[in-house]
Amino acid sequence: MHQESAGSAQTAAAAEEAVRQLRRASRRIGSALLTYRPLVDAAWADELSGELRHLSGTLAREYRCSARQARLLAALHRLAVEGVGGDRAAALLERQHTLARSRAHSAALETLVSSRFHAVADAVAVLAYEVPLAPGAEQGSAAAVLVPLAERARERLVRAVEALPPPARVAARPQDGQEGHEVPQARGGHDLQNRQDTAWFEVRILLRHHRYAQEVLYAAGAPSEDVRPGGEQQGATGTHGPDQLLRAASAALDRYRDSVEAAEAAAAAARTPRIAPATAYALGVLHAGQRQEAEVARREFGTLWQQVIKDERTAGQKREAAQQAV
Amino acid sequence: MHQESAGSAQTAAAAEEAVRQLRRASRRIGSALLTYRPLVDAAWADELSGELRHLSGTLAREYRCSARQARLLAALHRLAVEGVGGDRAAALLERQHTLARSRAHSAALETLVSSRFHAVADAVAVLAYEVPLAPGAEQGSAAAVLVPLAERARERLVRAVEALPPPARVAARPQDGQEGHEVPQARGGHDLQNRQDTAWFEVRILLRHHRYAQEVLYAAGAPSEDVRPGGEQQGATGTHGPDQLLRAASAALDRYRDSVEAAEAAAAAARTPRIAPATAYALGVLHAGQRQEAEVARREFGTLWQQVIKDERTAGQKREAAQQAV
Repeated sequence: MHQESAGSAQTAAAAEEAVRQLRRASRRIGSALLTYRPLVDAAWADELSGELRHLSGTLAREYRCSARQARLLAALHRLAVEGVGGDRAAALLERQHTLARSRAHSAALETLVSSRFHAVADAVAVLAYEVPLAPGAEQGSAAAVLVPLAERARERLVRAVEALPPPARVAARPQDGQEGHEVPQARGGHDLQNRQDTAWFEVRILLRHHRYAQEVLYAAGAPSEDVRPGGEQQGATGTHGPDQLLRAASAALDRYRDSVEAAEAAAAAARTPRIAPATAYALGVLHAGQRQEAEVARREFGTLWQQVIKDERTAGQKREAAQQAV
Repeated sequence: MHQESAGSAQTAAAAEEAVRQLRRASRRIGSALLTYRPLVDAAWADELSGELRHLSGTLAREYRCSARQARLLAALHRLAVEGVGGDRAAALLERQHTLARSRAHSAALETLVSSRFHAVADAVAVLAYEVPLAPGAEQGSAAAVLVPLAERARERLVRAVEALPPPARVAARPQDGQEGHEVPQARGGHDLQNRQDTAWFEVRILLRHHRYAQEVLYAAGAPSEDVRPGGEQQGATGTHGPDQLLRAASAALDRYRDSVEAAEAAAAAARTPRIAPATAYALGVLHAGQRQEAEVARREFGTLWQQVIKDERTAGQKREAAQQAV
């Protein structure tokens, strides 16, 4: 289907959906193998999760290229950049993205017909009924076995969030009568920004691992109120609240990543030789706009995360109160 | 002093302070003549306030040019624009602003040695002991005469704020799981943005008139609790609260104006013929950054204004309760 997706719009949509499901499944299985690695044969888990990451990464490239192009052109259109250079910037971005997308498409195609892909598919098929468990993993309830490992994934996430650089305080209330008030932004330039982006991308991945680990817990029926260790575990209670919050937080970090990459693409396009100054100007405006959207997404994540933490605390207190009542 | 301000740093600083006080006084007297116009000879008031506005406008130009240059260079430095074109953009802006500033300096100088200026100075000196009052203006207490006119200035401001376009909702909470979330921004391009800026600039001026009208009330000892008409009048009670809030709101609108003008200056610089693409790119980033600061200043004003309205309501309720208790 992917090969024939140039054929018709219908085939293309179906192929896109199939690839999306493939990416989604690969991500989840790969992540579960990482989080619950001590329960299975380590060498086997490492190889399979590596292959799955490679697969989902390759398949994601084409999708992300399309999405980035759409994002940049929509932003250009929205900004309308005062009519100066916007059209030429759009044409330049379109040209560059079309090239990159067709390369990504070919790479995805090669992957999907490779013997490497078929080997992964076979390994995953086997996974459904025959998992090479580590010694002792079959003993104990699902809760006793799974929950501590899920908790470790959660702790890694919490630590990474706590280590994030403080957000730019653009909404800070001005001091009375203070002139020359500056909006604090990424000071210290590009290197600092890159380091910060890296830390945020890391949180994005760890949040995914946390969510997927919770999904496994939920599917295993592990996290009922009475098996939760130390009142710490949350987010997979089966109620919609925590799960929706985590998904929204994940979506904010996805937008963050998309904006950062779009900003980079705008900057890269501006380095194309022999472009007109007006085109470069429009790309500069575009770049800054995408960095701003990244900033907004960071703040959104911050708000959602505070809610996550607050909800966990409230749930913990409720459990303690219930235990004392017993 | 202004003429000799190129001489030494000390003279320059003293000249700058003198000019600042001159602007400040001109603005206040001109504004008071507008607000309280029905109390004085109309033709005389219109001429003098027109002259004072012209004076403060001319004197402000040099200051604003310096401030804008400093703002733009600081922003460029802060952004560091990935090392691409930032230095050349800074050099270009510096060149253009130096030229504009020296023109503004000459214009200010010409104004200060003109017979027109001396005529204004004479008129203001006369104002201190001999105001051509309108018939009937001498009757009634200061409260009865001044308060209704100050209230009109306040109402003009309130109406203008209420008519402002809704702010861009950049901090909007994302819908759960919604992909492709866009940050709403100035849609419809440059014309809409210009219209919005004009509306905000108008509010900035009306807020000043309101503040200066309140200062006059306060100086006249008018607004004691028992003379306030209809419980509507606020902001000049002698307590620090409302006055500080209004000053902070004014400062936010000043920052708004400064950012918008700096953004325009960056866009104008990018239209300089034969600049390098990298320079144009840096100016685009700079432009977008200044528009973002303008957006932040709008939101700051919005927050402060809500506080102003809330405080007025609370004060009104207290007064009503006190009256009922009597």
